[in-house]
Formats: sequence, C-alpha cells, structure tokens
Amino acid sequence: MESKADSNSTDQTQFDRIFHPENIAVIGVSSKGAGFGAGMFFALRAIGYEKDIFLVNPKGGSLAGQPIYKRIEDIPHGFDLAIITVTAGAVPGALEECRRKGAAAAQILSSGFRELNTDEGRALEEQVRQIARKGIRVIGPNCFGIYCPQSGLTVLPGADLSRKTGPVAFCSQSGGMAVDFANTGKSMGLAFSKIVSFGNGADLRETELLDYFGNDSQTGVINMYIEGVKDGEAFFDTLKNITQKKPVIIIKGGLSAAGSRAVLSHTASMGGSRVIWQSLLKQANAVQVNDMEEMARTTLAFTRLPARVFRQISVLGGGGALGVGAADAAETHGISIPAFEPGLRGQIEDLLPRPGSSAANPVDVANPYVRPEILEQVMELAAADKRIELQILITLFHHYKNFSALTGKPVREVTPYAELAERVEKVVQKTGKPVVVVLNNPKRGTDHMDVVEMIQEARQAFMQRQIPAFDSLNEAMEAIARVNQYYNTKGKANE
Amino acid sequence: MESKADSNSTDQTQFDRIFHPENIAVIGVSSKGAGFGAGMFFALRAIGYEKDIFLVNPKGGSLAGQPIYKRIEDIPHGFDLAIITVTAGAVPGALEECRRKGAAAAQILSSGFRELNTDEGRALEEQVRQIARKGIRVIGPNCFGIYCPQSGLTVLPGADLSRKTGPVAFCSQSGGMAVDFANTGKSMGLAFSKIVSFGNGADLRETELLDYFGNDSQTGVINMYIEGVKDGEAFFDTLKNITQKKPVIIIKGGLSAAGSRAVLSHTASMGGSRVIWQSLLKQANAVQVNDMEEMARTTLAFTRLPARVFRQISVLGGGGALGVGAADAAETHGISIPAFEPGLRGQIEDLLPRPGSSAANPVDVANPYVRPEILEQVMELAAADKRIELQILITLFHHYKNFSALTGKPVREVTPYAELAERVEKVVQKTGKPVVVVLNNPKRGTDHMDVVEMIQEARQAFMQRQIPAFDSLNEAMEAIARVNQYYNTKGKANE
Repeated sequence: MESKADSNSTDQTQFDRIFHPENIAVIGVSSKGAGFGAGMFFALRAIGYEKDIFLVNPKGGSLAGQPIYKRIEDIPHGFDLAIITVTAGAVPGALEECRRKGAAAAQILSSGFRELNTDEGRALEEQVRQIARKGIRVIGPNCFGIYCPQSGLTVLPGADLSRKTGPVAFCSQSGGMAVDFANTGKSMGLAFSKIVSFGNGADLRETELLDYFGNDSQTGVINMYIEGVKDGEAFFDTLKNITQKKPVIIIKGGLSAAGSRAVLSHTASMGGSRVIWQSLLKQANAVQVNDMEEMARTTLAFTRLPARVFRQISVLGGGGALGVGAADAAETHGISIPAFEPGLRGQIEDLLPRPGSSAANPVDVANPYVRPEILEQVMELAAADKRIELQILITLFHHYKNFSALTGKPVREVTPYAELAERVEKVVQKTGKPVVVVLNNPKRGTDHMDVVEMIQEARQAFMQRQIPAFDSLNEAMEAIARVNQYYNTKGKANE
Repeated sequence: MESKADSNSTDQTQFDRIFHPENIAVIGVSSKGAGFGAGMFFALRAIGYEKDIFLVNPKGGSLAGQPIYKRIEDIPHGFDLAIITVTAGAVPGALEECRRKGAAAAQILSSGFRELNTDEGRALEEQVRQIARKGIRVIGPNCFGIYCPQSGLTVLPGADLSRKTGPVAFCSQSGGMAVDFANTGKSMGLAFSKIVSFGNGADLRETELLDYFGNDSQTGVINMYIEGVKDGEAFFDTLKNITQKKPVIIIKGGLSAAGSRAVLSHTASMGGSRVIWQSLLKQANAVQVNDMEEMARTTLAFTRLPARVFRQISVLGGGGALGVGAADAAETHGISIPAFEPGLRGQIEDLLPRPGSSAANPVDVANPYVRPEILEQVMELAAADKRIELQILITLFHHYKNFSALTGKPVREVTPYAELAERVEKVVQKTGKPVVVVLNNPKRGTDHMDVVEMIQEARQAFMQRQIPAFDSLNEAMEAIARVNQYYNTKGKANE
C-alpha cells in the first residue's frame, strides 16, 4: 500500500472536464482505421459525440476526412480529455505532452504496464504516476475508458451503447466487465450516469471515484467491480460514508487463491481474504454480489423500488408449482408470503377460473390466459391486505405462442403485454405498493425466437412504466432481499 | 400415509402400453375444438402421433373430419391409453368404462379432486383410486399427462415439443413444471425418454415411476419434481437403490411454511420439513436442486460429461475479469484451477496476442477475436497438463456484432461458432478430456436479437457435437459440482 499523499486531488470542475469534455484528443490513431485509437474515434462518432476530436499519429495523414496531427503539440487547440492508445513505451511521453496542452485527464487504453509483472512494466507505470502528480488525471492504463451517455463518451467497444442517461454508476477495474455491464444494463432497462473502467488505476481509482459518485447528483446507485484496493482504510472510510447516502453494490473479484493469481496478471492489484472482505463490506453496509448479472438485477431493484424494506409480499402466478416455488424462494430470502384471510380469499376466488385456481397467497390463477383486467382486479384486492408491502406478478406470456399458432398472427400481436403493463402501473399508482414482474420464459430455442423477442418487448413495456422485470422468481426475490438488507441496516444505523 | 397394498403393480408390458400406446381414446372432446380434450387431440396430431385416436363426447358430432362417439362403449376397438378431460364428477364413470374396454391406463387431466380440499373432491378421488385398483392405471387426476417423443405422446400444451428421443426422464407432480422443463430442455439441447406429469397421483406416482425409470434402458438421468411423497420409506428405499445405477435430480417443492400451504391446494400432498428432506436426499445420494432451470443445467452436465469426478480444470476465457471470476467460482464449487508450470505457460503465451493476455490458468486470451485454430492449440496444450481433468472455454461471440456492423454482414455469418464447435470436438477427441463451453452474452436487448439468435445457433452447434453449453461460468461450475458430488459419493459407496 502506498501513502495517501500519492493521490491527486481533483475538484468538481476538473471532473466536469473529464466526464463532459468540450474536446477530445485521440493519441495513436492509424490512418488505416485499425486499432484502438481509430476504434475509439469511430465509436465516439457512432454514439454521437459531436464536439471536436483531434487525432494524432507520428505518420500524419487523415482519417474519415479529418487531419491526423503528427505531434500532440501540433493540435491547434486545447483539449479537456486525451485518449491514449500508443504502445506502453510511448505512453509517458504522450501523457506529458497532453499535460502541457492543459488536458484535465487522459484515459490510457494501452496495456503493458504493472500487469505484466516485469520491472519495465512497473517502471513505466511509475512514470505515468509521476506525470499525473504534476497535474493531469489518469484513467488506466490497461482500461477501456469512460462511458457517459449524457456527454457522448463511450468505452471501447461501446459504439452501440445507449445515449439515455440514468441513475446508475459503475466503476470497474475490469474493462470487459464495464462493457458487459453497460450492455446487460441496457437490455434490462438500466440507464447510466457514468461508467469508468480504470484498469490498473495508476492514478484515479476506486476510493476517489466512489467519493465522486457519492456526491454526484446524477448518480443514485453506485456499482463497483474491485480486484484490489490501494488504501484499504481510506476505501472503507469512504464506503461507510457513501452508503449512508446511497446504495453501493460491490463485486470483489479474486477472493480465492486462483482468483488472486488471476488478479495479479489482470490489473496488478493485491487481493485480500474472503472473510475479511465480506466482513468489512458488511460493516460498511455495502451490498456484496457475486457476479455481474446479479449486480445488474440488484441495481434494477434499487432503481425501481421505493427506498425501504419489503417484509411481506403477495405472489400472483400462473401455475401451482410457481406458487410453491415462490413460497420456498421467499423463505430462502427472508421474505414472508402471508396467507390471505378467508374473506379476501373469497373475493379473489370469485374472479379466477375454477377449478384449478387458488387464492391463498401465493395466488395461482390456474390459466396463463387470464385477462389483464382480471389480474388488475386481483392485484388491487391483494393490495387491500394491509400487511402486503409489495406484489410479485409472474407472467406466462410464452403460452401465447399457442394462440399465435392457432390464429396465424405474430406472437407479439396476440400477447397482451402492453395492456398488462398499463394495468400494473395503474395498480401501483392506486395502491401505492410496488409490483415486480417476472417474465418467465422456457421457450428460448431457435424455433421460438419470436417468443424471445416478444418477452424482451414486454420487458421494455414494463420498464417504461418503471416496473422492474426479472427473468425468474428466484432472481426477483434475491434482488428484493438485497434491497431489504441495505435499508434494514441503514434504518438501524439511523435510529 | 396409506399402505403399500394400495398401489397397483404393473409389469413392463403394461408400461409399454402406457408409453407406447397402439391407440388412444380422448374422453371429453368438444366438436367445437375448444377445451382440453380437443386441445389434446390437436396436440397429438401436431406432434405426429399417427395411430388411431378415438374421440368421445355425449353430444357426438365430428372433429377435423373424425367421428365423435357418444359413449366410450361405442368405440369400435380397444385402446391402450385413455385421456380423460371430462368434469370431475363424470370422471369415475368414464374411467370405469375405459377399464371395461381393456385400457392399460388413463391420464386424467381434469381437476376438481383432492386438491380442492373438500369432502366431495376427496370422495371423487377415492372413487378413482378404487377403480384403478380393479386393473387400470391412472395418471393424475389434475395433471398434464405424458410426453414420450419416441411414441408421439405429448403433454398439454406441448404441440411444439421435440420428437427427438434422449436419455432424460422427468416425473413431476406439477404439470406446469413438466411442460416448462420439456421446453427449457429443448432449447438447451436436452432430449427426453419420457416426461410424466402425475398431478395428484391418485394411483401411479413418484415411487413407482422412479422405479420404472431406474430400470428403463432409454433413461440415463432421472429428474423429479416432488411436492410430497405418499410412502416415505418406500420412496427413499427405491431412491437409494436407483441412485446406485443412475443420477436422480430432485426438486422438493413446499419446504417452507407458505410453500407447504401452496402444495396442499396444488396437488393435495403433504410436505415435510426442509432439514429432514435435505438429509434424506443426501443420504440417498440424490442430487437436490432448487429450481427448474438449475435442474436443466444439472441434467445437461450429467448427460454430456463422462461419469466421473472433475477436481482440477483449466479455464480459457476472453477477459481477465472472467479469469478472476472463474477462479472465484471454482473455489465456491470445490473445484481447483491449478496454475500451469512455466514451460507450458510459455508455450501458451507464444500463441496469444501480447500484451494483455495471461497463460497462468485461468488463461486470458485478451481479445475476443482470437481465431478458433489458436484456441484449439491452446486447449490441446492445456490438456497436456496431466492434472487437468476438464476444460472450460468461455466464448465472447457477442463481440462479433461489431464485425457485423463494420462489414454489413449478418452476425451469424461473421461469427466462427461452427468452426469453433468443430475444433473443440477435435480437442475432446484428441485429449480425451471433456470441454464445457460458456456462451457469454450481455447483448440481449431488442436491438440485439440477431446476437441472441446467433448465440442460440452456436449452442446447437456445440450440442450437436455433445459439448455442453451454459449461459454463464458460474452456472457451468455449479453443474460440474453437482456431477462431482454424485460420482464422489457413488464412488465411496462402491469402495
């Protein structure tokens, strides 16, 4: 561990220049259009960054009609952010030039530094750190950069990411994880404030980014993928502080022996034992998750559910085994599904097809084709039980494939997902109790791609109405349990 | 619990008539084509059951050009299997008529029996049981029937299930779970010997079916969804016996308080405590899983991997965080990823792009576009380490979407999944060590349906070569761990 004096201090203005650069220089752009530099240039243009991008390569030439400057000093203008993609040995020189041009920061995509575990690699990274100390912030090296939909910055590859801004931040030691999370989040309906892949973290890294996101008004939920921290004490102090304001969801990679070895060659960080990490994260009320998919689901719950604990829920599903499964999953996740009293049960039973249905809670609607208006009524009734704090609705839209086959109409036309989304939103508004939807779908083969696509459209319909949708009941319950865990601890701390 | 004398005994010939009926009678078919009876008739024809199906309804008439007999006794021929869909009150009469006609069995889809928890429902079910004792086997009531791809029997709904026969059997108290598993299995590449949804299990149920599948030469892996067993001692005796021959994978539903209530109204079974079930299943060396998706993945591993334990593995992936994640997941699942010795590491390093790659195991190939022939060579080298018993290959095919965007060609054309499947098969044949593939895909939104479809085609390409493919690394590891657990215990028992 190195001393805290080693880290730069950066004010809000400088961070604004990093995340919202007025102009960018890409250092190391091939006029042939190949490599990271040109890739980054095209990705920025594809996602819609419209301000100046200056290109630099010692060979000069042009790319897409734009001149390539031979030297950084030849750029006829200052720039806020540099993207450096030259070979490792040429990075310190380029970084120094960018600093002289007054750049606020450089993201260094190049690898070949400390992660090589060679004297040369370590020496190069130390040079980068020394230059950073003189007044330019460094993201990387060995990283994928910054994704900021509002300003049009994107990671590489990330030309097809969304421009929609939202409350989710992610800082990741792994570039691959940063890109995967951006993509997974997009398909699940998450929208991002900023994603930072910081790689080896020679300068700007976990603690400072956490602090920045903690105070960033655009960020509501912070996600982190950490392989190792530079200053444990500072990190956990900051973490404890930030979790009092907003949830921080963390994947700690490299907690096993083999994982720790992999960390060393990946981002040159030192790991730490599983028990210590788990205990410290718990003390700090961080939400620890195991993988990126779980992180995305947890974030979905945090961004779409009210900020509170949900202890007692109702489950409305289309098949008795789902009801049984719901009850079992709930118990696993510390949630309770209280039985409705006979009066309410009777009212619900009157709405459902008989026989085969059950109104005990879980409510088994017995038939996948029960109309949305009936489901709306059942959910309104269920919400009338004062104990119920949240409702889960399990949809079985894949069954409409049979309707599609019978009628010859596309499955997306015969499935009433849009109406159901509308009615669920009404239920939420009327009852004041959130609804979580499960989009169950066992039909995922190449002969059912129409079903897969329809389910994805249904997900969008729900997400547009702020209703979180999960793939399975167990995953929904798990995400709710994470929310409960965070607000439960937070509530106790504030008592 | 009722006495064993209550259960019918059925020989192989009778089971053959049930699963491979020479002719079927559907009792309760509307000439309007609506309802379960007509649905079953159309589903059987759609899936390709080509032998005689006799239709019965008191109103007579015809359906799809076929006469509907007014009474069962009017059917001018005997039949092996009856499918009864009439209202609960009419079931005993219909069943008795079928028995008189010499049917081997009747599957009763109708509900309205013990699961209602009424005196009338219980009495009707007792009548069904009494008739069964006189010499006709009953599947159900309150079930979805039998799926047997070889003979062309299918559950309802199940018109679009596969006719491909394979080693996977499933007996399920839940009809919904039976259909979902058939669909999920189909999309994952599983093929089935028989699926039986037995509902309330008035006659034929878990223990006898388990015994039958245990001795069925077409069945290699048995799956069960159980809400409650009728005779615990008989069930666990049979289970202990069968697990010595083949793996039995079990979901026990209703282990929670709320789940147990749901069970009662679902299939009228009695549950049992979580601790007792877990302990008994473990003693019997059954593989307990938590949900249907996990069951499908576990079955995939059992059907595609050699019958043994895999303690030490290699992981080859496209991103350092995947490598770190692999190592962490392995430790969680009791698997080890031993570091390669420097000589082998050097040989692997020589094949990989530099910098950014790592050959320590996990092997990080650094670039998602590394060619299949290189991956083949790396895997052959890795298998040369005598300790390695299995290899996991993490693919990152979704990155080819960028190639597709650049070239204007469909993503399925630019992604080398077919070549990779071929080369992986070669590696398996040459090294004698199995390979498990992970089809990582964060691009699942409506704008990436071409990627989703391509990934599904890639899955088929691998599955056709008997290479199991999972969606995530953690899921792959978990499935391998289940295989290990079973063969480890089995091996000890046989010592």
